[in-house]
Amino acid sequence: MNASKSKLLDDLKALLKDEQVTVNETILEQHGKDESYHTPSSPDIVVFPESAEEVSAVVKLASAHKTPIIPFGMGTSLEGHVIAYEKGITIDFSLMNKVLEVREKDFLVKVQPGVTRMQLNKDLKKYGLFFSVDPGADATLGGMAATNASGTTSVKYGVMRDQVRDLEVVLANGDIIHTGNLAQKSSSGYNLNSLFVGSEGTLGCFTELTLRVFGIPEHVVAARASFERLDDAVAAVVSILQAGIPIARVELLDEQSMVQTNLYSDTSYNEKPTLFLEFHGNEAGLNQDVEFTKEIVKDHHCEDLVFEKDNAARNKLWEARHNLAYAYIHGHPGKKQMVTDVCVPLSELAGAIKHARSQMEKLDMVGGILGHVGDGNYHTLLMIDVNDPVEVEKANIFNEQIVEYALQRNGTCTGEHGVGVGKMKYQEREHGQALQVMEKIKAALDPMEILNPYKLVHMKKEENK
Amino acid sequence: MNASKSKLLDDLKALLKDEQVTVNETILEQHGKDESYHTPSSPDIVVFPESAEEVSAVVKLASAHKTPIIPFGMGTSLEGHVIAYEKGITIDFSLMNKVLEVREKDFLVKVQPGVTRMQLNKDLKKYGLFFSVDPGADATLGGMAATNASGTTSVKYGVMRDQVRDLEVVLANGDIIHTGNLAQKSSSGYNLNSLFVGSEGTLGCFTELTLRVFGIPEHVVAARASFERLDDAVAAVVSILQAGIPIARVELLDEQSMVQTNLYSDTSYNEKPTLFLEFHGNEAGLNQDVEFTKEIVKDHHCEDLVFEKDNAARNKLWEARHNLAYAYIHGHPGKKQMVTDVCVPLSELAGAIKHARSQMEKLDMVGGILGHVGDGNYHTLLMIDVNDPVEVEKANIFNEQIVEYALQRNGTCTGEHGVGVGKMKYQEREHGQALQVMEKIKAALDPMEILNPYKLVHMKKEENK
Repeated sequence: MNASKSKLLDDLKALLKDEQVTVNETILEQHGKDESYHTPSSPDIVVFPESAEEVSAVVKLASAHKTPIIPFGMGTSLEGHVIAYEKGITIDFSLMNKVLEVREKDFLVKVQPGVTRMQLNKDLKKYGLFFSVDPGADATLGGMAATNASGTTSVKYGVMRDQVRDLEVVLANGDIIHTGNLAQKSSSGYNLNSLFVGSEGTLGCFTELTLRVFGIPEHVVAARASFERLDDAVAAVVSILQAGIPIARVELLDEQSMVQTNLYSDTSYNEKPTLFLEFHGNEAGLNQDVEFTKEIVKDHHCEDLVFEKDNAARNKLWEARHNLAYAYIHGHPGKKQMVTDVCVPLSELAGAIKHARSQMEKLDMVGGILGHVGDGNYHTLLMIDVNDPVEVEKANIFNEQIVEYALQRNGTCTGEHGVGVGKMKYQEREHGQALQVMEKIKAALDPMEILNPYKLVHMKKEENK
Repeated sequence: MNASKSKLLDDLKALLKDEQVTVNETILEQHGKDESYHTPSSPDIVVFPESAEEVSAVVKLASAHKTPIIPFGMGTSLEGHVIAYEKGITIDFSLMNKVLEVREKDFLVKVQPGVTRMQLNKDLKKYGLFFSVDPGADATLGGMAATNASGTTSVKYGVMRDQVRDLEVVLANGDIIHTGNLAQKSSSGYNLNSLFVGSEGTLGCFTELTLRVFGIPEHVVAARASFERLDDAVAAVVSILQAGIPIARVELLDEQSMVQTNLYSDTSYNEKPTLFLEFHGNEAGLNQDVEFTKEIVKDHHCEDLVFEKDNAARNKLWEARHNLAYAYIHGHPGKKQMVTDVCVPLSELAGAIKHARSQMEKLDMVGGILGHVGDGNYHTLLMIDVNDPVEVEKANIFNEQIVEYALQRNGTCTGEHGVGVGKMKYQEREHGQALQVMEKIKAALDPMEILNPYKLVHMKKEENK
């Protein structure tokens, strides 16, 4: 350890309790990777603060030492967001994991950033409430806000950005601000909530979140609809949405994904292109929606429509869907996952998925297609051997083709996983001159670029390196 | 006209056609005011561009001349947003008023900024679609995006910010950027859409908007519920929302407002505190919602619940509601309106309205209480004689009391009208150190402060004046 790092460590130990600061190699390694194919790189130090004031003190110290800061939740990011390529201090929020307040009458909950989505939902159940955003991983809410995560219910309830009413944020200069208020709407000042959500730790560290929650729906029906052809499944989704049916979930899994699901989740679903559907509402309205949906999927040659009648079967269905990424990992030991994540306008979805399937075949690659097709967001999940340069190169080419197809049709290179390091190369192509606006904002709020540097936006000094 | 202004005028005339540039006093005056009580002040010049390129050229010229730019839609703002206190060039968008594209399959529409909400809805009808945001005025969509407007349907469909998928924006340096894309969700880069929506012309001029639209609901039911006591009406709203009924509109009008409505709109509604309600959905679901709502309002001592059965009666109801501000103006010739616009967490709404009524009585003022109570957003509408300093002072004191009450309860000083010049004095109180973040963003994107200067945020040079 060099002198300046040693001084930084001493300074951190003066601020925090001994057990809140570590340079243990195993812990550093755990914090130097995420769930993606991106190459790991450990930070110098990991700290475990217990309050916003402690986070602020750590950031001020990092600023004085010109040392990078990386906020860390569960490490379940998929584009290398938490990897410490520039070394520095990783702030692990696992000790800040309390649900601070449930304001049931306001449908709001105040949490610390280390609370996970499942922990929150366990807490909310007794109030008859639920938090809607459900990425595959049991991520922390701080991490989910940082990447603007979404999930299976976003088609009805919205993405993470739609749920954040207020954030407490520690800025690069150590200031602690609030980005919003508790009112349902506001036209007061620039909307900082939405700017900080999705900023991936590059503008500040979140130390408290006020989130919107919903009443558990009176009535829920889930179903599986399987099709002979992937095209028909996609066309059915588009028809359901265009009919104005307020569907709560509509997920697509191709044959490959159904095979992996059955292998991992002890299910015996049809191994054909399948939609997982869910409807929320009052009983009468929902019955009408279900009947309408039955007609639509039949028109699109649905071969088998199975309603999951009881709670247990419904939970099993969604658990299987959430575990799908892990099913692929489990089924391909030694490999790492690369997941494409484009989102396209709904009218372009069928073409995009057809194109993805055809490019996969041309490149002779094996992978599954799945996703939140109600939002126009689909993934192709590839398991790759990161030590095989040919395989890595093919995966990169494939990812680029998928992104280019989406961008040509006014889509986005990432629907929900975020930019991290993996999608930086597409930022200029996607945003054009708007990227300079982002760089100016970054430069204005983090002039020394200590906050998760070289993620999301390049700064000018990068170019001069 | 001094030499520099004369030079600017010549330069503008070299860029644009003669009829696109004016210094006609009457036209300048029309562009130096809005619908509020704020003192008018005319710009030096008004221009009428026809394209983004022309707007960009005008902004570049203004930048070279260090001259303010004020974007102008219909002049229906309520906090002095378009008033030219710093003189300069007002850009009137009335020639950029085309609906450019309806992407029915994507539920998106691309419009120029001068299109009004009613014009858009007239165009959309043939597609079975509608645009949801409906402030009282028939404002332009550019202006509505600039102030993050909302209206009677926001409780179900969201505010302006929720509808904006992409903006074409001319920046202070003349660059033309796009802030978003056409995908339903994105985690790519900082969210510029939400930053520019509500920026009130201080960060750029909008030259094109891509907006979300909705399918016209299969079934619609509207109703009026009148109550003896205002408290009961408010409590009924809170109960309806807490029961999870997905109500599409729920508007409160107090006795005063019902009197004004009947006088202006040729209606003969009960002159008691009244809720205007609307339900959208499929027939079966909606009937269940309506039955449930009937029980709830009855529990809160509703005296009279009238369903508006046909289209004509329903349209009359909502037209009367939308014309309410004009009804007050019409009923008080020579006076100008001051409208409070706070929004509070739903649990604080009953207390806030009670407080407003009691303060109004203490100050011996006459005014109506009304608003989008489903969002926790209510207005008190005061008609004041701006030449009577006592009346103006009382109105200011009242507004301050209303705002302070809301801010103490984690609300906001403006739910939908925006900051303009009228709410600037509350920005520091509401945002604390977050205001410095807003100032840094403004300084980074408009360093010479030519874009609608001294609105929304003060900059440092203001303090050095």
